Amino acid sequence: MLFKDISLIDQDCTIHHNQYVGVKDNLIDYIGIQMPKQPGLYGQEYDGKGKLLMPGFFNAHAHTPMVLMRGYGENLSLQDWLNTRIFPFENKLQGNDIYWATLLGIAEMLKFGTVSATDMYFFGEDMAKAILKSGMKFNLSMGTTCFDDRELIDLAIFQEAKALFADYHGARDGKLLIDLSIHAEYTSNPNIVRGISDYCKKIGSRMHVHISETLSEHEQCKQRHNGQTPVQYFESLGVFDNPSTAAHCVWVEDGDREILARHGVTVATCPISNLKLASGVCDIPKLLQAGVNVAIGTDSAASNNNLDMVEEMKFFALLTKGKYYDPTLIMPKQTIYAATAAGAKSQGRTMSGSIKVGNCADLIVINLNTPHLQPVHDLANQIVYAANGSDVVLTMVDGKVLYQNGEYLTIDIEKVLFEVEKSKNRILAELASR
Amino acid sequence: MLFKDISLIDQDCTIHHNQYVGVKDNLIDYIGIQMPKQPGLYGQEYDGKGKLLMPGFFNAHAHTPMVLMRGYGENLSLQDWLNTRIFPFENKLQGNDIYWATLLGIAEMLKFGTVSATDMYFFGEDMAKAILKSGMKFNLSMGTTCFDDRELIDLAIFQEAKALFADYHGARDGKLLIDLSIHAEYTSNPNIVRGISDYCKKIGSRMHVHISETLSEHEQCKQRHNGQTPVQYFESLGVFDNPSTAAHCVWVEDGDREILARHGVTVATCPISNLKLASGVCDIPKLLQAGVNVAIGTDSAASNNNLDMVEEMKFFALLTKGKYYDPTLIMPKQTIYAATAAGAKSQGRTMSGSIKVGNCADLIVINLNTPHLQPVHDLANQIVYAANGSDVVLTMVDGKVLYQNGEYLTIDIEKVLFEVEKSKNRILAELASR
Repeated sequence: MLFKDISLIDQDCTIHHNQYVGVKDNLIDYIGIQMPKQPGLYGQEYDGKGKLLMPGFFNAHAHTPMVLMRGYGENLSLQDWLNTRIFPFENKLQGNDIYWATLLGIAEMLKFGTVSATDMYFFGEDMAKAILKSGMKFNLSMGTTCFDDRELIDLAIFQEAKALFADYHGARDGKLLIDLSIHAEYTSNPNIVRGISDYCKKIGSRMHVHISETLSEHEQCKQRHNGQTPVQYFESLGVFDNPSTAAHCVWVEDGDREILARHGVTVATCPISNLKLASGVCDIPKLLQAGVNVAIGTDSAASNNNLDMVEEMKFFALLTKGKYYDPTLIMPKQTIYAATAAGAKSQGRTMSGSIKVGNCADLIVINLNTPHLQPVHDLANQIVYAANGSDVVLTMVDGKVLYQNGEYLTIDIEKVLFEVEKSKNRILAELASR
Repeated sequence: MLFKDISLIDQDCTIHHNQYVGVKDNLIDYIGIQMPKQPGLYGQEYDGKGKLLMPGFFNAHAHTPMVLMRGYGENLSLQDWLNTRIFPFENKLQGNDIYWATLLGIAEMLKFGTVSATDMYFFGEDMAKAILKSGMKFNLSMGTTCFDDRELIDLAIFQEAKALFADYHGARDGKLLIDLSIHAEYTSNPNIVRGISDYCKKIGSRMHVHISETLSEHEQCKQRHNGQTPVQYFESLGVFDNPSTAAHCVWVEDGDREILARHGVTVATCPISNLKLASGVCDIPKLLQAGVNVAIGTDSAASNNNLDMVEEMKFFALLTKGKYYDPTLIMPKQTIYAATAAGAKSQGRTMSGSIKVGNCADLIVINLNTPHLQPVHDLANQIVYAANGSDVVLTMVDGKVLYQNGEYLTIDIEKVLFEVEKSKNRILAELASR
């Protein structure tokens, strides 16, 4: 595809107007103010007038199939939410439900401009099949939990994770990567954590964990482990010797951030979910100051309740200004970086997340010719503070258009909506008949 | 119009499915589970399958023409924002700029489902002309300021407000109402405040003021006026003897809320603008507990940066949960009430803001048949936590469709965008040549 006469945000988050961008196979092949000499090389031409080309979003922390529980458990304390709503519902899930729910979540993400997600859930094979069908990029991991003192080898979910890695890691030209995961400190034990860390090192994969989402989780960890914070605990067990993504980190302390920075751990902050579950507001300036790579995630649609990275960017930026009573904090370029390049980095996709020649064509187009995005004084301000996810009109992954103007190229959305409704109704019926 | 087989949110915020709603002239004439006996009475039929009919939004605090400055002054302290960006830009505004900018803001509001706005700005006649052209409802006031000890009679903007009231109050079947306004305590003097209050009483209009937006404004008022808070100050000068809307009220104290409640003053909270300018988070639970009517406003697009009440609802609900570390606070029905009926009440439009027979047909339709709004467990949760403004597919004011599926029925949007761009460029050129 050849994008013609389009505005773009480059790798330094600088805006350029009237650009030509040529995509060949899966890569960005040309960027210039002039028409390329052989425009025919790029196939279909796209009229970019009144539009912005930018890197697609990298959702750094998601539980995609939980779209099935969107709006199901609301306005409850975290414990009531989990125990009376989420866990009983999840207990009824079958592989088929997960397959269709994953496709629904992917449809939503593509519609809102997300090209890749870092996900932690279960039923990995069903998720992998849906992901491969869609053509979206994913770093997928199985959320390992263990509530007794079992050995790693005896954990079914670890066996599943191993098989998933063997069968799917690197599938579809690397679009699907299989990471390892420990759900959290309070849902595992040191043997398990150590075992998975070591296994991750052995196979050269990446780690995905939840850390210090709530104050009580953070404090209870310290009580259980001789004053060790969750960050210290995971560090001591070798987790961070792997490239790692730590979701939330709302309650990390001084010293924790330096550990995260030293090991190159990405913090996947989830501002909307943290606010909605009333867990707190993550301290972004302190993380950035410590040199931590901060990316943005939506968490699940059960606690968000959508997977819209544009909305997430606005909460990310504004909550920091509000927390510190300082409107000058977090510039739009920092927010856009966190939602794109920082997430790509956390996934090990270093040739994604920014627009330059040679990078993967993981791109989105935003329509600016709409009342709430006019007039334009500064496009970065416009995207972070004025846009919403529905302004995305095209989503391209590895050079292939997967979504354009309400149409999906790889997903039969009517079938997905039908199957998800069927799953929802079956599960609700089963829950009602308990 | 006859809405067929549609879901709706009624005046108690209860959801009903498979409803028929007949609109005759400007009123809701029929609501029932069955087709009305004389469907022909209602003209055009609207297939409501997969859609939600709800009251349109009432934006309780806006400065509509400031869409011209959307994204122009960003990430600055309040004083820098005002002095280096907003005031110099506003100084260049002409009536023609205001006319087109008002239409642009209205186009945005209609697109996002707002049927009526309470607005405070200047160039009232240009705004009034744009409002009347659009068919939207407005409570319009001129933001009176006075930085010396002049008498009210000598203030040009007061004369303008009087003329505006005489010429436009009640125009177009009451769609346009002219309110009176005192911009704020710190931008006026007691004589002016008293004078406008008395005049408002005399003509039977309503008052619109800014109160305690920032801590410094609040504290400085107390220093200037023997410890009186802005609420106490305005009360002492008779402002609240009129039906009044007080924007912001972020820093009101114990005692202030009771005064507001006693006088039936509406607080128009602007959660996004307050967060973005880092003014603080308004204490909604305390206001509600004191019995204050709490409505929601977007403030201006220069500090938001859009006029999307759906987005505003999500910030409204989540910030309260986050502020108190309590996810059970603010139920969706309270949020929806604040964004609709509470705003209608603040404008004196008691026959608007909820769906019942005999009420004004100020209605919107939301398309639910989209990935991020599926599956549906609870429609109120869906609207407050998962939707965005672009899910609105139809906006009707007084029974007339003003917006549907991207099309405006009263506004030439291409012309508006063209003229606004022209205004922006002229003003920027003038500023550059200073």
